[in-house]
Amino acid sequence: MNSISLHTKALVKMLMARVDDGVQMSEVFLVACGGSLVDLYPAKFFLASESFLLRTDLYTANEFVHAVPKVLGERSVVIFCSHSGVTPEIVEALKVAKAAGSLTVSLTHNKSSELPSFSDYNVVYEWGDESSVQNNPMAITLALCLEILQHSEGYPNYHKFQEALLKIDDVVTAARNKVGERVITFAETYQNEKLFYILSSGASFGLAYGFAICSLMEMQWLHASAIHSGEFFHGPFEITDKKTNFIVLVNEGRTRPLDERVITFLKSYAKNYVIIDAKELGLGVLPESVVEFFNPILFYSVLCDYREALAKFRNHPLEIRRYMGKVEY
Amino acid sequence: MNSISLHTKALVKMLMARVDDGVQMSEVFLVACGGSLVDLYPAKFFLASESFLLRTDLYTANEFVHAVPKVLGERSVVIFCSHSGVTPEIVEALKVAKAAGSLTVSLTHNKSSELPSFSDYNVVYEWGDESSVQNNPMAITLALCLEILQHSEGYPNYHKFQEALLKIDDVVTAARNKVGERVITFAETYQNEKLFYILSSGASFGLAYGFAICSLMEMQWLHASAIHSGEFFHGPFEITDKKTNFIVLVNEGRTRPLDERVITFLKSYAKNYVIIDAKELGLGVLPESVVEFFNPILFYSVLCDYREALAKFRNHPLEIRRYMGKVEY
Repeated sequence: MNSISLHTKALVKMLMARVDDGVQMSEVFLVACGGSLVDLYPAKFFLASESFLLRTDLYTANEFVHAVPKVLGERSVVIFCSHSGVTPEIVEALKVAKAAGSLTVSLTHNKSSELPSFSDYNVVYEWGDESSVQNNPMAITLALCLEILQHSEGYPNYHKFQEALLKIDDVVTAARNKVGERVITFAETYQNEKLFYILSSGASFGLAYGFAICSLMEMQWLHASAIHSGEFFHGPFEITDKKTNFIVLVNEGRTRPLDERVITFLKSYAKNYVIIDAKELGLGVLPESVVEFFNPILFYSVLCDYREALAKFRNHPLEIRRYMGKVEY
Repeated sequence: MNSISLHTKALVKMLMARVDDGVQMSEVFLVACGGSLVDLYPAKFFLASESFLLRTDLYTANEFVHAVPKVLGERSVVIFCSHSGVTPEIVEALKVAKAAGSLTVSLTHNKSSELPSFSDYNVVYEWGDESSVQNNPMAITLALCLEILQHSEGYPNYHKFQEALLKIDDVVTAARNKVGERVITFAETYQNEKLFYILSSGASFGLAYGFAICSLMEMQWLHASAIHSGEFFHGPFEITDKKTNFIVLVNEGRTRPLDERVITFLKSYAKNYVIIDAKELGLGVLPESVVEFFNPILFYSVLCDYREALAKFRNHPLEIRRYMGKVEY
C-alpha cells in the first residue's frame, strides 16, 4: 500500500466515524501560506468544479484566523499545509478549527513538527528531486479531496482520477527530460531581466502565483506578478510591449483556450515570452475527464528546473533570504 | 424608494417565486472580468464569511464559461457585471447560466446593453464622480447579496448593514476631502516610478488587485501587482528594499492586524510606501459588526483621486489604450 492510500484510508475512516456520530460533512476549507497555499489550490479548483454538495474555500492562514468563516464547525473538514511545520499562523489556524469542532488534517515535511499535537490527522510528505510527485503535498491534497468527494456524493471519474495519480510520475519524468536544454536557454536569455508576468488558468492559476511569489520574488528577489489568462484581456495586457517578460503555462484541458488566446496576443505584441505547454509535454496521456487537475503538478516540477537554471546563471542560490527567518516580522 | 431598494425588492420577489416553485437557492456565483470582477469581490468575501448555508464563488467570466462548475443549475443565483455591457465573455457566461436554469442578474452602466435580453433581471447603475457610491456596482452587489443572505437564512446584522449602506456616501465624501492634498503629494513623489505593489486583506483584497490591474496596468501602463497582506510574509516580502514602491490599504475591521503587520515591516525595511487607512479616513462610524465589508467602497473612491492625480503628473490620461478596443484579441 503506497502512502497516498494509507492517508486516504485513514481520512475516510475518520469521515465515516463522524457520520456514525450523526455529523455530515458540508464544507472543505484549505488553509496555508505562500508556497504551501499554492499546493492546496488545485484541490480547491477540483472541488469547486466537481462537487454538487460541498462548499469549499481557500484561505491564507492569517485571514482564516482573523476573519473566521461563520460556518466553520463540526461539519467542516479543514486541511492545513505548512512545509516547515512551524508557521505560527498555521498553528493558530489549526487551533481555531479544532476549537470549532472541525475535522483537521495537517500536511508538513517536518517530522518533528508540532502540528500533529493540534490536528486529527497529520501527513509527513516527501520533498525534493528524488521524491515521487505522488508523495508531494499537491498530489496528496488532491487525493484526499478526491476521497472526500467520493465519500460525500460519489464521483463518476473516481477511477480515472486514481489512474491519473498512478501515471503522473512518469509524465513528469519525461517532461523534465524534455525541457533539459530549454531551461538553460531560458536562463541564459533572461538572466538579466528584473520583472516577469506569469500567466495561466484553471487548476494552474495557483501555480502561476506560486512561481511569481516563491520562485521569483522570494528565491530570486525579482519582481513578478501572476495574471489569470482570462483576466489578461481586461486590463493587464495594456503593459505588453517588446521588453516585458511573460511566462505562459498552457493547460491541457478545459481552460486551454484561455491560455492559447494569451499566446496568440503575445505573438503579435510581445517579444519576450516563454511558453510551457502541458500538452506538448505529454500530459495528454492522462484520462481526458480529469487531466486538467494534473496540470499544476506537471508545471511545478518543470518550473523547478527553470528556476534552478535561472538561479545558477544569476549566481543567486535559491536558498538565500534577507528577511525570512532572519529578522523579526 | 431609492434604486437599491428597488433592485433588492425585485430580487427577493424572484427568489420567493422560485421557492413557490419548489426551488431553494443553494449557491451564489459572481461572474465578471477585470474591473467589474473587482466590484463583485466584496460580496464574495461577505457571503463566504457570513453565510451558513450558501456556497459562493467568484469567477472570471471566460473560466466560468470553459470550466462550468457542475453544480450550476436552477438552485444557483448568478450575478454578472459588465461595465460596458458588451463584454463577449459575459454574454457567453450569461447564456451558460441561463441554459442551466439559474436565476441570473446582470449589472451594467450601459443603458442599451444587450445583457437584459439574456438575464432575468438587469440593473443599470450610475457611474462617475457625481454618482452616489450607493448606486455603484460594488454597493449594489453587496446589497443584493445582503438580501440573498437574509432571504436564505436570516442575517443578524441585516439592519446594521442597511444602516451602513445609508452612511457610506457621507464617509466617502469626507474621506475624499481629507486626501485632497495627499493625492497631489503622492503623484508628485511617485510620478517617475514604474512599478508598484498594492497590499490589502479581507474584503479589500479585490480592490488591491483592481488598483493594480486597472488603474496602474491598464490606465497608466505601469507594472503592478497585488499581494495579500497575509501572504506578504511568506515569500513576496523578500523583494522589499528602499527603492520598491508599496501602497498599503489598511482595513478597518477584523483583518486590520494583517495590514498593520505589513506597515510595521515596511517602516523598517522600505522607504517608498503609501498608507491609505480606512480607520483614519473615518470608516469607523459604521456599525462595528459590518464595517469591514465597506472598506473597498471607501478605498475605491479615494484611490480614484490618487490615480487621477498620478495621471495628470504623468501626462498619461486615464482613457488612453493601445490594445483594448483598438486591436483584435
